[in-house]
Amino acid sequence: MNILLVYAHPEPKSLNGSLKDFTVSHLTLAGHTVEVSDLYAMNWKAALDKHDGADDDKQVRFDPSSASLYAFSNGLQSADIAAEQQKLDRADMLILQFPLWWFSMPAIMKGWIDRVYACGFAYGVGEHSDSHWGDRYGEGRMAGKRAMIIVTTGGWASHYAPRGVNGPIDDLLFPIQHGILWYPGFDVLPPFVVYRTGRVDEPKYRQLCDELGKRLDVIEQTQPIQWHRQNSGAYTIPELTLREDIAPGEEGFPIHLIP
Amino acid sequence: MNILLVYAHPEPKSLNGSLKDFTVSHLTLAGHTVEVSDLYAMNWKAALDKHDGADDDKQVRFDPSSASLYAFSNGLQSADIAAEQQKLDRADMLILQFPLWWFSMPAIMKGWIDRVYACGFAYGVGEHSDSHWGDRYGEGRMAGKRAMIIVTTGGWASHYAPRGVNGPIDDLLFPIQHGILWYPGFDVLPPFVVYRTGRVDEPKYRQLCDELGKRLDVIEQTQPIQWHRQNSGAYTIPELTLREDIAPGEEGFPIHLIP
Repeated sequence: MNILLVYAHPEPKSLNGSLKDFTVSHLTLAGHTVEVSDLYAMNWKAALDKHDGADDDKQVRFDPSSASLYAFSNGLQSADIAAEQQKLDRADMLILQFPLWWFSMPAIMKGWIDRVYACGFAYGVGEHSDSHWGDRYGEGRMAGKRAMIIVTTGGWASHYAPRGVNGPIDDLLFPIQHGILWYPGFDVLPPFVVYRTGRVDEPKYRQLCDELGKRLDVIEQTQPIQWHRQNSGAYTIPELTLREDIAPGEEGFPIHLIP
Repeated sequence: MNILLVYAHPEPKSLNGSLKDFTVSHLTLAGHTVEVSDLYAMNWKAALDKHDGADDDKQVRFDPSSASLYAFSNGLQSADIAAEQQKLDRADMLILQFPLWWFSMPAIMKGWIDRVYACGFAYGVGEHSDSHWGDRYGEGRMAGKRAMIIVTTGGWASHYAPRGVNGPIDDLLFPIQHGILWYPGFDVLPPFVVYRTGRVDEPKYRQLCDELGKRLDVIEQTQPIQWHRQNSGAYTIPELTLREDIAPGEEGFPIHLIP
C-alpha cells in the first residue's frame, strides 16, 4: 500500500520519534511505500487564515468555508495545502501519529486538518436530498482508504478506562476517529495507544515495538470500526438522528457503532 | 469580575467577531472588566516547541513537560506565554470563544492551551499520595475561577443532539470542558452554542444576542456543571476509576456528573 504518515512531535529523539522511525522502517520492509509528513520538521503553518487562498486581496469578508472552496476549486490554494492533498489522494492509508496533549492532538496537527481538509475536498461534497445528506460519514473522497491513529499519553490505562477519570479513550478519540476520519470516508482501524510514556524503558520499548509491529503486519486485513453510514437509512434526513428502532433509548457516541 | 475572553476567528466581520464584540460591550456595561486575547490578531504562535523556553541550547533532548516546568519555574518562558498566564491569574473568569472546526477548537486556540498550560502552572501540581493524586479535576491553580465556552457551528442542533450523527454536543465538548477547564480547577458553566451559522440573518442575530446577553447577565450566579472531584473519594487512587457504587455498571463521559 501507499501509506501517508502524518506525524507531530517536536523532538525527533522522543518516544514518538522512535515509534515513527520504527513504523516507517517496519512498513517499508513489509513492502509498503511510506510517505511522511513530519509537521514540526516541515514547520507546518497551523492557523487557517485568508492567506491560505491566493485571492485574499479581493475578499471583503473572509469566510473560511467559501474561501476554501473557491481556492480549492480554482487551483488557488497555498502550495503547502495542495501538496498534502496530493499526498492524501495517492495514499491508500493514512496514519496519524501524535502525543495526546490535553485530550486531543497537538495544535500543529489540528492545523493540518483545519487547512488540508478544504471545502470541496474533505467536506461540502455530494448532493443533499431527501435520502442523502452529502457524501460524509462513510462516503466521500477518502472512501476506500484506511486510517489509523498511533497515540501516546502520559496517563495510565486505567485513567482512560471505561470508568476512568479522563474519560474512555475510545470516546476521547471519537471526535478524531469518527469526526475527522470517518467523516470524509476513511475506514478507521482500532487505534494503537501507548499509556504511561514516562515509564517506557528499553524492555518496555521493545515490547511496544513488538505489539505495534504485529498491528502493522495486518493493516490490510484488520476489521475497521463499524459505524453506521450516514446515508444508509440508519439516520433520519435531514435531522440526522439515529432511527428510533436502532439502539432504542440509548444516547452518546457508542450508539453509532453497528452492534 | 475580571474576565478573560480568549477568542479565535480569522475574520473580525464574522458572526464570531460580532458575538465577541457584543460580549465585550455587554459585560463591560454590566460593570465587569474584560480583557481579550484575540489570537488571530495577536498572530499567536500555535506550535509548542523548544523555543518556548529560553534555555533551548542546553537541551540535548526536548521533553515538553520537563522543559515547560523548568522554564515556568525559572522565569524562562517566552514572553507571550508568561503574559497569558498573568492574564489567567488576574481573571475571575475565562471565556473561550471559537467556531467548532472538525469537532474541536481551531488549531490556534489549541496552541494557546498547549503552550500557556505549562507544567507547574496548569498541570503537574499538587502532591501524590494514597488519597490525593495531584491537584486536578476540581482543584488546581484555577480553583475558584469560572469558565464558559461560546461556540458556533454550521451544523444543525439535531445533528448534535443526544442521538445526532455528530455525537452529542456535551460529549464533543467534554475533552475541553472537563479535560481542559475542570482539570486545572475551573468551575465550568454550561456552554452557549450557536447552531446553523449559515442561516443567521439579522433577526436571528438579534435573538442570539438576546439569549447570550441573558446568559452573561447571570455568570456569577449560574450553577456550574457538577462533576465529581477527583480527590473527593469518588475515584479509587491511583487507578482513578469511578468507585463501583457510583453509577454502577455505567460507562462514558456522563458518569462523571454528580446526579
